Amino acid sequence: MANVYTPPVQTLIDELGRLPGVGPKSAQRIAFHLLKIPAEDVARLAMAITDAKARVRFCARCWNVAEQELCPICLDDRRDSSIICVVEESRDIVAVEKTGEFRGRYHVLLGAMNPLEGIGPEQLKVKELFARIEPEQVQEVILCTNPNTEGEVTAMYIARMMKPFGVKVTRIASGLPVGGDLEYADELTLGRALEGRRDITN
Amino acid sequence: MANVYTPPVQTLIDELGRLPGVGPKSAQRIAFHLLKIPAEDVARLAMAITDAKARVRFCARCWNVAEQELCPICLDDRRDSSIICVVEESRDIVAVEKTGEFRGRYHVLLGAMNPLEGIGPEQLKVKELFARIEPEQVQEVILCTNPNTEGEVTAMYIARMMKPFGVKVTRIASGLPVGGDLEYADELTLGRALEGRRDITN
Repeated sequence: MANVYTPPVQTLIDELGRLPGVGPKSAQRIAFHLLKIPAEDVARLAMAITDAKARVRFCARCWNVAEQELCPICLDDRRDSSIICVVEESRDIVAVEKTGEFRGRYHVLLGAMNPLEGIGPEQLKVKELFARIEPEQVQEVILCTNPNTEGEVTAMYIARMMKPFGVKVTRIASGLPVGGDLEYADELTLGRALEGRRDITN
Repeated sequence: MANVYTPPVQTLIDELGRLPGVGPKSAQRIAFHLLKIPAEDVARLAMAITDAKARVRFCARCWNVAEQELCPICLDDRRDSSIICVVEESRDIVAVEKTGEFRGRYHVLLGAMNPLEGIGPEQLKVKELFARIEPEQVQEVILCTNPNTEGEVTAMYIARMMKPFGVKVTRIASGLPVGGDLEYADELTLGRALEGRRDITN
């Protein structure tokens, strides 16, 4: 059943199916949705895609999304350049910024190590991170990759490679989510929470 | 946190988020994916969207997707025009065609009735169906809408409105899926299967 649809429809379904998290069924659903809605709405989507791709690039320093050579955070002189928070994706910067707890700079790896998918340190912006340490006089690197296998492996790799630089390397804490319920915590998270226990100072 | 991303990125995320089944998180994920992959892959997606929208229209007779005034099925003289299979979407035609059991024509409603979302018969190609009965000398209308609430309501509405035409109106059978297991059937499906039981002729 390769060519059940008229070619432009099949091409559209195929292209949509290449997007992350869009399976063949969703691709079909989105394609028929696009054929049904007004042409100007479709034009707006196509334009948003083309426009973002043309105007958005990656910050030459930290690989965050940017419209100029540097991203707004790297351009902001008030930020502390001696501390770098390493994240997997630009969207993680948004999450950290929302906490209001961090006033340093970032470094976006554009992914995490995943040997099964052939993603090693060379596919990520890892050497670009090392290259920043000396010129920017970095004192601390916070490894803020995801608390899953890929994120952990990436953090451990970077921590190990960072040793010769004599820089303080930290990892965000894993543990129970705030507002969570002990009863429903999985054992890995609870294990981490116990491991990372801290003294209570009154 | 309205404008955390640079405007073209935010616009892209917003536009992607309007697609069916794409929530805010997936929209973000797809947007950053598009920013990371080669420009030619992105251009191909944008082109597929624009191209499909420009070249594909709906069949003037049955509302299937078409590249000419009529769709390939309506253009095919060997198909029996006295029997019409009514479906919700073009993709359902593909499902019916795969069975190899049907050699008549189709009619695509372009949706199903859903009062909560303000979709009534006027929003669907219902009167276009009625308009086909006499000129095409239709003898039987098979209501092949989905076996869910919206599909059932739509089928019942059409069946009732079809009475004055004196045409045979049938509904596809609901029951246990072939290869299924009685033990795991939900009670609604099993109820339908019992209701729709047929004599076994040896």
